[in-house]
Amino acid sequence: MTHLDILSKLATKTDSKIVLLVMDGVGGIHTAERPETELELARIPNLNRLAKEGCCGRSMPVSYAITPGSGPGHLSLFGYDPLEPAYDIGRGVLEALGIDFKLEKSDIAARGNFCDVNAEGIITNRRAGRLPTDECIKLCKELQDSLPEMDGVKVFIMPVKEYRFALVLRGAGLSPAIADTDPQKEGFTPKDIEATEDTPAARRTVAILKKIAALYYKILKPRKTANSILLRGFSSHPGMPTFQELYKLTPAAIATYPLYRGVATLAGMDILKTGTEIADEFKTLEENWAKYDFFFMHIKKTDSYGEDGNSAGRIKVIEETDGQIPRLLALKPDVIAVAGDHSTPPPMKAHSWHPVPFLLRGKFCDADDVEAFTEGACNHGRLGMFPARAIMEMLLACAGKLQKYGA
Amino acid sequence: MTHLDILSKLATKTDSKIVLLVMDGVGGIHTAERPETELELARIPNLNRLAKEGCCGRSMPVSYAITPGSGPGHLSLFGYDPLEPAYDIGRGVLEALGIDFKLEKSDIAARGNFCDVNAEGIITNRRAGRLPTDECIKLCKELQDSLPEMDGVKVFIMPVKEYRFALVLRGAGLSPAIADTDPQKEGFTPKDIEATEDTPAARRTVAILKKIAALYYKILKPRKTANSILLRGFSSHPGMPTFQELYKLTPAAIATYPLYRGVATLAGMDILKTGTEIADEFKTLEENWAKYDFFFMHIKKTDSYGEDGNSAGRIKVIEETDGQIPRLLALKPDVIAVAGDHSTPPPMKAHSWHPVPFLLRGKFCDADDVEAFTEGACNHGRLGMFPARAIMEMLLACAGKLQKYGA
Repeated sequence: MTHLDILSKLATKTDSKIVLLVMDGVGGIHTAERPETELELARIPNLNRLAKEGCCGRSMPVSYAITPGSGPGHLSLFGYDPLEPAYDIGRGVLEALGIDFKLEKSDIAARGNFCDVNAEGIITNRRAGRLPTDECIKLCKELQDSLPEMDGVKVFIMPVKEYRFALVLRGAGLSPAIADTDPQKEGFTPKDIEATEDTPAARRTVAILKKIAALYYKILKPRKTANSILLRGFSSHPGMPTFQELYKLTPAAIATYPLYRGVATLAGMDILKTGTEIADEFKTLEENWAKYDFFFMHIKKTDSYGEDGNSAGRIKVIEETDGQIPRLLALKPDVIAVAGDHSTPPPMKAHSWHPVPFLLRGKFCDADDVEAFTEGACNHGRLGMFPARAIMEMLLACAGKLQKYGA
Repeated sequence: MTHLDILSKLATKTDSKIVLLVMDGVGGIHTAERPETELELARIPNLNRLAKEGCCGRSMPVSYAITPGSGPGHLSLFGYDPLEPAYDIGRGVLEALGIDFKLEKSDIAARGNFCDVNAEGIITNRRAGRLPTDECIKLCKELQDSLPEMDGVKVFIMPVKEYRFALVLRGAGLSPAIADTDPQKEGFTPKDIEATEDTPAARRTVAILKKIAALYYKILKPRKTANSILLRGFSSHPGMPTFQELYKLTPAAIATYPLYRGVATLAGMDILKTGTEIADEFKTLEENWAKYDFFFMHIKKTDSYGEDGNSAGRIKVIEETDGQIPRLLALKPDVIAVAGDHSTPPPMKAHSWHPVPFLLRGKFCDADDVEAFTEGACNHGRLGMFPARAIMEMLLACAGKLQKYGA
């Protein structure tokens, strides 16, 4: 039995309510130049109170020293093993989710680049000189209008940012087993569209994609820049079991960025409309409190400022989040967890592998002697360093939603 | 995907350099009679400095309480799961590697005992009364000269120590699927040579081994002692993926004992010629610094003195190693790890299952508050107790050699 098989067998519906507050990339590191992390520098009386009342540790998103992308990082928080091929979210799907596209189970999605090719068709710039986003929007509209459908299959081409777009095919009998046309290097021509397996669905998808690409190439050819396209990461909805099926939860997600709403959708969560500020997210929580028994709340900017190396910005976001905690406590959730999907240490200006501070607070959580929500304090917590995919299990148990295993 | 599949997918070649310093059996235990370990008693300012600048923990070689031999202990340090059958190094192969024999991929190796049998052929002493090594050398030479080849297969019979020898067959179409002839008990005759699977290669190997054994039995029969042989652990090169293939490293090994050079060879490391002293090993490191990006350095005598129950000797070796650390630091490695393949607590005079103190020091290692390289201090390190096979992953990540997993 897999980990999730056991949980789905033991989970029961109860009235208790869980809030999983994810501060994206919240983990930091200690370096000689910056001996204190933002969590250590910030004034966070409310988070510290939760740490004191709860039990703490540090969660590993994927493995001891694997740096996760946002997809695997969140899968793990939601209990899915990100190394399981069944839960592998393809690049195309992520791109579509990242623009709030409502992906259906049978859709095929690809990530696209507008690129530059020379007269011989050889790629001279894979990103069309970082095409401005406005131009990308205009081009996608032109291509979309030129071809809304092909052989009974709906075609969606949608701008993402700069040179990036998402392409989605919607129809029956399609397959994501399509190779990248992007050679990942300049000096080559885009590859032909080819299937990676020999099935009727893959052959049909190749035939349709060839017609679409031929038309796009023709329309773009006269242009000086962004005069061709590259496609990669063909993929479809991973169709993983939902929170309802696995955990008997009625889950909702509150997130200001589309990618996280997208991953939450895959897990079966209702997406709640919210504003752009942290306070808006807590307002949304209050307004929807009665309707759900599980809330995933996502704070984005801890990660964004980490990627920028901006410690001051990160401290501000952490303090701002801390300031909202009393609103959360006022709702009297049975279980609160504060977690991160990975670390984004400002000295590294990137996601990293370092385990993430974690706290769990609930009636029977077994409070340890950690009194602060910081990396250093959480190192000494009762939970030690543990796989992030155990978090859902802890939340359910602490909320009284898991039955005994065996007699 | 296995752990190594993921690492091989994410590993990239860079200029950064890693040193993995293994102090064999370095872990100790606290007992009522000896409340302090050798690491706690030794004066080790340099190792303590590394612990202070790095992050620490205790590594489990195989599992929570499995005592590893040297083979599994090192496989685990090198990232291979020692419980995977694919990485099972047979007893015969270990014996051949332990005498610096250059094992080829298709060789079949067995471990041999000279033994005593009576007139009825029944074993009266499995170890020929612990035959002196000189006698073993003489006997092996006699048998080797009597039969350098059989049916186109090269035969190597080589002394190990006391009653022990290694037998290697070299030729095409051989199989290691041969049962032990050693009944592991006195009062029985040596077993016939038999295959454990029915394949042409196994049948051919049996036929050849029967002829070899018949000749050896005939030559030894007139002797009073050491008048027969027992064979066991038939095995061949495990053919595991190398450090180059898995980790994109250019690795070298510096070790004073043949067994460790042998295991390093299996992992694809270049074996560097060195002297017998610890200082010689650091000199070898200096001389070869430019040529490699990964160095495995092996200090043997922490283990030997542990097996002898000699705390004073162990303290001396630990301090001697500590005294060489400044030479290592002067080379400015990007990442240094100090580890052990297992514990060898002097109170037990044997290998043990206890997790091994571990430290990792590099730019983004995330220093914790451990300030000494001791068992007690490492218990409180950020890494906690973790599987030793995660060490290579940590070294690669810390050296900036692992890409992000997923988008």
